[in-house]
Amino acid sequence: MAEKSKKPQKLRARLPRGLADRGPAEIAATRAMVAKIREVFERYGFEPVETPAMEYTDALGKFLPDQDRPNEGVFSFQDDDEQWISLRYDLTAPLARYVAENFDTLPKPYRSYRVGYVYRNEKPGPGRFRQFMQFDADTVGSGSPAADAEMCMMAADTMEALGIPRGSYVVKVNNRKVLDGVRDAIGIADDGQWLTVMRAIDKLDRLGISGVQQLLGEGRKDESGDFTKGAGLKADHIALVVGAVDKGAQMDARLRDSKIGQEGRAELDEISKLVATSGYGADRIKIDPSVVRGLEYYTGPVYEVELLLETKDEKGRPVRFGSVGGGGRYDGLVSRFRGEPVPATGFSIGVSRLQAALTMLGKLDTRPELGPVVVTVFDRDRVADYQKFVAQLRSANIRAELYLGNPKNMGNQLKYADRRNSPCVIIQGSDEKARGEIQIKDLIEGAKAAAAIASNQEWRETRPAQFSCAEGEIVAKVREVLARHDVKWG
Amino acid sequence: MAEKSKKPQKLRARLPRGLADRGPAEIAATRAMVAKIREVFERYGFEPVETPAMEYTDALGKFLPDQDRPNEGVFSFQDDDEQWISLRYDLTAPLARYVAENFDTLPKPYRSYRVGYVYRNEKPGPGRFRQFMQFDADTVGSGSPAADAEMCMMAADTMEALGIPRGSYVVKVNNRKVLDGVRDAIGIADDGQWLTVMRAIDKLDRLGISGVQQLLGEGRKDESGDFTKGAGLKADHIALVVGAVDKGAQMDARLRDSKIGQEGRAELDEISKLVATSGYGADRIKIDPSVVRGLEYYTGPVYEVELLLETKDEKGRPVRFGSVGGGGRYDGLVSRFRGEPVPATGFSIGVSRLQAALTMLGKLDTRPELGPVVVTVFDRDRVADYQKFVAQLRSANIRAELYLGNPKNMGNQLKYADRRNSPCVIIQGSDEKARGEIQIKDLIEGAKAAAAIASNQEWRETRPAQFSCAEGEIVAKVREVLARHDVKWG
Repeated sequence: MAEKSKKPQKLRARLPRGLADRGPAEIAATRAMVAKIREVFERYGFEPVETPAMEYTDALGKFLPDQDRPNEGVFSFQDDDEQWISLRYDLTAPLARYVAENFDTLPKPYRSYRVGYVYRNEKPGPGRFRQFMQFDADTVGSGSPAADAEMCMMAADTMEALGIPRGSYVVKVNNRKVLDGVRDAIGIADDGQWLTVMRAIDKLDRLGISGVQQLLGEGRKDESGDFTKGAGLKADHIALVVGAVDKGAQMDARLRDSKIGQEGRAELDEISKLVATSGYGADRIKIDPSVVRGLEYYTGPVYEVELLLETKDEKGRPVRFGSVGGGGRYDGLVSRFRGEPVPATGFSIGVSRLQAALTMLGKLDTRPELGPVVVTVFDRDRVADYQKFVAQLRSANIRAELYLGNPKNMGNQLKYADRRNSPCVIIQGSDEKARGEIQIKDLIEGAKAAAAIASNQEWRETRPAQFSCAEGEIVAKVREVLARHDVKWG
Repeated sequence: MAEKSKKPQKLRARLPRGLADRGPAEIAATRAMVAKIREVFERYGFEPVETPAMEYTDALGKFLPDQDRPNEGVFSFQDDDEQWISLRYDLTAPLARYVAENFDTLPKPYRSYRVGYVYRNEKPGPGRFRQFMQFDADTVGSGSPAADAEMCMMAADTMEALGIPRGSYVVKVNNRKVLDGVRDAIGIADDGQWLTVMRAIDKLDRLGISGVQQLLGEGRKDESGDFTKGAGLKADHIALVVGAVDKGAQMDARLRDSKIGQEGRAELDEISKLVATSGYGADRIKIDPSVVRGLEYYTGPVYEVELLLETKDEKGRPVRFGSVGGGGRYDGLVSRFRGEPVPATGFSIGVSRLQAALTMLGKLDTRPELGPVVVTVFDRDRVADYQKFVAQLRSANIRAELYLGNPKNMGNQLKYADRRNSPCVIIQGSDEKARGEIQIKDLIEGAKAAAAIASNQEWRETRPAQFSCAEGEIVAKVREVLARHDVKWG
C-alpha cells in the first residue's frame, strides 16, 4: 500500500464506465428522431439556439460547498484563472444564462429549442449513462398558462411524429402550486421535510398508495430489507396528502382555502380548457395530481410524458417504460441573473432514453444501411484502372470504394463486401480486361439464390446474380442492381 | 490578500472566454455544411461512428508529466477512482482507441467518418475557440497509397460540394518520408532539433524562403522585435533543406541515396498517378514538398486543403484563408494499444473554421429563416379561440404560434412578429368575430409597400397587404401568403 508502489499499467483501449460508442444504425436512428422532433418544435414557432458544452459552474446554478471540490453530479475543472467550469448537466441552466446575457436583444417572449449532449458525473447503471442527449424547448418571458398548454400539446404531437400511436403515450399535467397548497394546509415549514414529502408522492406509480403512505409516515422497508426514512407526518396529514394526489379522491375541505392552491387549480383549469379547444382529449393530455417532477426549481405547472407501452424486465414481467420527457414552469431560473422576475416554462425530451425505448419496441429501423459498391482488385498492377471505375461510380452519386486491403485473395475481398453489406461488387480479371468487359456480382440476389439452391455444384454452375457488361456500361448496370434492391442513393 | 477576504461575486451571466453561443442562421449553415460533407464521405464508402466527448487521458495519448496535473492543452478531471479523464481534443485519438477496442469485430480495412465538437484548453484568440467542430474520415488497416489518394480526392470533392469553385482551393500533398530523407542526409539525431526544422519548413508560405533560412540557422527576429531561436543548421544543410522543400528546385544529389526518401517519393508518384487516372488534375491535387502538418504522429503521406480565396485583414490587406483541413498517414496510433503495426490514414475538416471562411466569402446563406405565423390576441378572454386557429395552422404543417406576451398592446404584438421575421399575422377583433372572419396581415408585402409609399396617410388609407377572409379559410389563405414568399414549409 506504499505510495508509488503500483506497477505502470499497460495502455488498454477502454472507455470510462457510463460512456458508450455508437455505430451507424444507432446514429441514423438518432438523426431521424432529431429531425422529426425538430420539425414539430419548429411548427410550434421555436427557433434553434446552441450553447457550448461547458459553462461557469456558478452560472449553471451549481455552487461550491468547499473550496476544493465543486458539487457532485457534474464534471468540473478549474480554468487557468482558477474559476470553476462544469460540463452542462441539462439544457435549461445554460439557456437561463443565455437569455440573461442577451436579454435586451432577444424577442420576448423568447421561444427556442436546443438539442445536444449533457453530462452527469453520477454512478452509471443499466441504461444510465454519463453522457446522453436531450432535446428541449423553452418559452421565456411569458407567464401565461397558454405557454404551458402549448408545451403539453407539442409533447403529444412529438410522440405521434415519432410513430408512437395515440393511446400509447400520455402527457400528465400537475401544478406545483397545488402541491404548495397541500404544504400550506399541513403547515410544513422545513424545506427538507417537504422535499421528502414530494419524493414520496413521486413514487406513487411505482409503490402504490400504501408505499407512499409509509414514506409519508415513519418510513418504508423495501424487498431487499433496506429502510428508507419517511417524512414523519401524522396520520391525518398523510390522509390529506394522499387524498390530494389520488386521482379518484374528493378534495379535502382543508385544501380549498389555500390561496396558492386555488391559483394552481385555476391554471390547470385554463390549461385543460386550452388543450381541449385545440382538440387534445384526455387520452393525450390529462391532469394528474400525483405528478411532481424531481427538479426543485419548478414553480408552477409541471408535465411528464409517459410511454404506456410495455416491455418485459429481466424476469419476464411486464414493465412500463414510464417517463421519456417532461418539464414545467421555472420562474426563478433567469431571475437569478436579472434581479427581476422572468417567467419561463420548458419541456425536455430524453432523446437517448426515448431511443432506447423505441428500439426495444421495434419502432426504429435498426437495420444497417446498404454499404458501398466494392470494386475488387484482381491484378494489383492495375489499381489505377480499378480506381477509375470507382471514380466513375462516385461521379454518378453511387457510393463506391476500391478494396484497400491486401488484394492477394479474392475470397477475402468478397467477404469484406459482405461485411460492409454491399449491394454488389465489380470484378475485372485479365480475360474481361481483354474483352473490355467487367463482371458485376449482385450480392443480395446472390445470397437469396444461395439460400434457395441445394447443391454447391449447382451454385457453381449457374453462378446466379453475376453478369458481364461492357466497361462503359458500369454506371447504368450498377444502377439497375441498386434499383432492384430499393437503394435510396445513386 | 488574506484568504477568504474576497467579497462574494454577484452572479453574472457570461461564458468562459473562447466559448460562444450560436444562433439560428449559424446553426442552419452548419447543418447544411455537415449534410453536404456527409454525403460526399458516404459516397466514398465511409460509415459513421460516434465516440463520447471524454476518454481516459492516457487513451487519448496524453500522459501525465506530474501527478497533480495532466498535460496542458486538454480539459481534464479525475474520476472517482482517481483515473484522469479528458475531453477529446481531436477525433483521431478516440478513433484509434475505438478501433483497438473493437479490432476483431470491425471489417478491415475499416472506413469510418465522425463529426463532432472537440475541446482545446488553449489561450483563445480572434477566430480561435476552445470548442469547435471537426469532420473526420479515416481508413484503418490499409497501408496502400490508394487509401491516401482517395483522401485527397475526397477532400477536393468536399470543397466543391460546399460551393467552393475549382481553382479556389487546392489539396497539397507531401510525404513525411521525403522529409525523413532530408533528415538522413543531414544526419540530425536529436528529435527536438528536427522538430524545429519541420516547424521552420511549415512557415514557408507565411515567411518565404529567407524567413525559413533564418529559422533553420541561428534564428529570426520578427517585426515586433521578438526573437525565435533557430535550428542551428550549417549553411550547406540549410541549402539542402531549402532545396528539398522549394517547389522549383532541382533535387540535391545527397537526397537521392536515402532509402526512406526514395520510398516517400515512390508513394507520392503512386498517389499522383491514381488521382490523375481518376481525373483529378494538378489544379485540384498537387504535390508540394513544403507541406509538413504540425502533428508529430504522421508517418507517411500528409495532405492539406488550402482555400485560395482572399479576404482583407483588419488593415485592408489581402489575406488568403489558408488551411481548412488536412491529414495524413499515422501508422503508429492504433498500434500503441495493439502491439502490432496497424496502418491508418485520415483526413479532418475544420468545420467551424471553414464555416467562418465561407461566411466571410458570402458562400453561406446567413439570412434568418422566416419565423412562424403569429396569431395575435385581441381580446384576452378569447385566448382559447386564438389557440384553436394556431392548432389548425399547425395541423396543416404551417409554423404558427399564439402571441404569449402581454396582449394589451397590438403594436407590441406586431413588433414581436416583425422581430421573429414572421410572414404574416392573424388578427380577430370583436367585429371580425361577429362576422365569422379573420384579418390576415402580410408582413413582407406590407414592408415592401411601406417602403414604396411616400406618405403615412396614404399607407393608413390603403392598408396594403392586409385582407379579410372567413375563419374556415384560414389555412388556405395563409398558404397563399406563404406561397407568395417562397416559404419552404407549410
